[in-house]
Amino acid sequence: MQQFGVIGLSVMGKNLALNVKNHGFSVSGFSIDKPEVDALAKYEDKDLKPTYTWEEFVNSLEKPRKILIQIMAGKPVDETIHKLLPLLDKGDILIDGGNSNFHDTVRRSRELDAQGIHFIGMGVSGGEEGALNGPALMPGGDEEAYKEVAPILEAMAAKTPTGQPCVGYIGPEGSGHYVKMVHNGIEYGIMQIISEVYDVLRTVGRYSNDEMSEIFANWDKGAAQAYLIEITSKVLKQKDDLTNDHIIDHILNEASYKGTGNWMLEDAIHLGAPITVIAEAVLARFMSKATFRDDPEPKIDPAKAPADLVENLEKALYLAMAVSYTQGFEQMTMAAQAYNWQLHYDTIAQNWEAGCIIRSEMLQDIKSAYRSNPDLKNLFKAPFFDKVKKNNMSALKEIVQIAAEAGIPTPTLSAALNYLESIFNPHLPQNMVQGQRDYFGAHTYQRNDRPGTFHTEWYEEK
Amino acid sequence: MQQFGVIGLSVMGKNLALNVKNHGFSVSGFSIDKPEVDALAKYEDKDLKPTYTWEEFVNSLEKPRKILIQIMAGKPVDETIHKLLPLLDKGDILIDGGNSNFHDTVRRSRELDAQGIHFIGMGVSGGEEGALNGPALMPGGDEEAYKEVAPILEAMAAKTPTGQPCVGYIGPEGSGHYVKMVHNGIEYGIMQIISEVYDVLRTVGRYSNDEMSEIFANWDKGAAQAYLIEITSKVLKQKDDLTNDHIIDHILNEASYKGTGNWMLEDAIHLGAPITVIAEAVLARFMSKATFRDDPEPKIDPAKAPADLVENLEKALYLAMAVSYTQGFEQMTMAAQAYNWQLHYDTIAQNWEAGCIIRSEMLQDIKSAYRSNPDLKNLFKAPFFDKVKKNNMSALKEIVQIAAEAGIPTPTLSAALNYLESIFNPHLPQNMVQGQRDYFGAHTYQRNDRPGTFHTEWYEEK
Repeated sequence: MQQFGVIGLSVMGKNLALNVKNHGFSVSGFSIDKPEVDALAKYEDKDLKPTYTWEEFVNSLEKPRKILIQIMAGKPVDETIHKLLPLLDKGDILIDGGNSNFHDTVRRSRELDAQGIHFIGMGVSGGEEGALNGPALMPGGDEEAYKEVAPILEAMAAKTPTGQPCVGYIGPEGSGHYVKMVHNGIEYGIMQIISEVYDVLRTVGRYSNDEMSEIFANWDKGAAQAYLIEITSKVLKQKDDLTNDHIIDHILNEASYKGTGNWMLEDAIHLGAPITVIAEAVLARFMSKATFRDDPEPKIDPAKAPADLVENLEKALYLAMAVSYTQGFEQMTMAAQAYNWQLHYDTIAQNWEAGCIIRSEMLQDIKSAYRSNPDLKNLFKAPFFDKVKKNNMSALKEIVQIAAEAGIPTPTLSAALNYLESIFNPHLPQNMVQGQRDYFGAHTYQRNDRPGTFHTEWYEEK
Repeated sequence: MQQFGVIGLSVMGKNLALNVKNHGFSVSGFSIDKPEVDALAKYEDKDLKPTYTWEEFVNSLEKPRKILIQIMAGKPVDETIHKLLPLLDKGDILIDGGNSNFHDTVRRSRELDAQGIHFIGMGVSGGEEGALNGPALMPGGDEEAYKEVAPILEAMAAKTPTGQPCVGYIGPEGSGHYVKMVHNGIEYGIMQIISEVYDVLRTVGRYSNDEMSEIFANWDKGAAQAYLIEITSKVLKQKDDLTNDHIIDHILNEASYKGTGNWMLEDAIHLGAPITVIAEAVLARFMSKATFRDDPEPKIDPAKAPADLVENLEKALYLAMAVSYTQGFEQMTMAAQAYNWQLHYDTIAQNWEAGCIIRSEMLQDIKSAYRSNPDLKNLFKAPFFDKVKKNNMSALKEIVQIAAEAGIPTPTLSAALNYLESIFNPHLPQNMVQGQRDYFGAHTYQRNDRPGTFHTEWYEEK
């Protein structure tokens, strides 16, 4: 009898199966796509059992069965569960490792719970390579069921620099997939921030691709160390096979997307979460496909770049990245309250420390901040990030001003600056919005000096 | 027999009924809330017939019946339609004048169409006073049915400065409610823009409320003339009954919302519409409720205000308002394509010229732009708005820079600037996003120099 089962054996599923097997567990694999099973059979490994029917697959597993479903999100997951259900026993554990929408995961959790089957919705990050050598895992669902599969998940997960596994129980129902969705939203934010910094470097600094590659490589050695900064350096250095130019100059500047960033923004609207950097990053991808491209010339800043441009860009990048993470954690905090989840933010930070796309040095500081204060309401309320803000705010301001002068759009850098100027601000000007609403619609308002709800009889009623 | 029927006789419904009657049409009114019908009876006017049962109401109307449903959006509308259906005849016309979600209107259109009943989803703007004296109306649905009710709607609607009625056929199915939703999104944008300008005036310019009231009143006499600017002047002047201070200083700075702005942003995500100013305005309301308010002191700019501050603020306000309208029309253009509607943007601009909250001088220029070129893809491609951009861009830049220096958040002014720097820009930096995506996820990319889809074997695969 095998200890673990995987359904869906395309690259992700196959690599996850190999990863589990490589850590000493016996695995059964099944796919409705027969060639995928044949590919598994070619390994000729008794701990990697190919199975060709639903029955053969289910019957090959020891009880309680532990089954990872690694297929396309959406209807296929429901169909797979429907096929499996009659073959399972109470107490069996199903894990959905796809990029499922958390609303679907909540629904499936409840349906399966009623049948006595444990369901774990698990975010998986790290791509094909991470799947094989160590992904970041974000499992949510029944906590007792999690404990049953924890030894396998901990063995297969990426490890932090200090050797901790990048997996830990997230919370109930859809919370695992929710956290993966937030991971992807933060990823959108950081990618757009880096793109804007790249634009300032090439336009104001007039650096070559090789020089910029060097600059990002240097930043990757400092406090701003992050996988996305590391690969930015590599992307800038890469030569093109077809032209012998740098490939970056031939990649079309239209950003595609698969939708998890959009989902995060949709739920931000539902929750009232002010995740402006992530929203601007989502909309910047839309913008890149909507632009008319008929400004005549590339932007070149006529002014001489200030001497501290690179230094200030590093600081602005670092602070804006911190805002992207902060907004992600802020939305999770609001989701936890709205959906009645108890989330462990230090565990989430640790889950992201290695194996995933947004891994960075900063996640250790985020983990420490939540360890020191599990009830932290905003990362910038932690002493470490308060200092990050103090030390880098003037650089961020200066970069936003320089970019405005040079005509370079900086939607996420501007949003990060505006967020930091707003989130602790007792004097936001929305008293004007409320005054207007009461004027034209008698919507009433509250006062800042006494309780209650008020309406003014305006001098000149409309 | 009466010529027009109104269901729902709270303030909006009653005022709309009175409005129709005042224009020479006989009206029946009905409500499930008997006191509302009694209130109508008190007018003792034979052209304003109170009815107390569904049957009495329906049978009092000449055929084809023309019935306006003016009740709370959502389930009550479905319940009302359910009650009416058995009593109606084929060819009767139902108009939903509530703030319904356009998805509901599409569904109801199709359901009623199958039963031979014409359905018109109609956005109504202007509040209680507009309902009585002339609202802006945005009717969408069956065009033949619209022609039947047009004489009544045109009589009751607000009139533009040149005497045109603020009503005209919008398009099929949910398009009327869609246009109302966009109206409200633009309204969010302009209100937030004004709030930021107010914040710069009080903090950098250190003007008193009365001085600011004067400044907005002056702007209202110029090119930036707009109802929202007019009432801003009045809100700033208003004294508080309780303290004898200006009321603006005692209104709590937390902005409430009812959701149509949120709906617009949700559909922008669905369509891929880059409506950054409106998104930031929605999120700024969230922010005003999420802020920690523990920065110690009100922000006071230590620098002396530049001499041209007020002039530049007027220009920045005017240009940012233009961006808010532009993004609204851009989203309607994308919706028209996605939902297969043919929209008449000049009619929409005219519908908004009077009676509604976003009425302004600029809407005449928008109407002219679409009259000259009905296929205009973006307002800033019209000569008039190209000039607006050229004449005001440096002022907007300067205000964003001054605000950054002073620590004043300007989410919508920054978004307007970044939008204008992006929408015609052939050199956005999203080639970096695509390079990163291909690096970490083999998501492939397109090139700017040849067709096809490409993937790079990066030197150092992860």
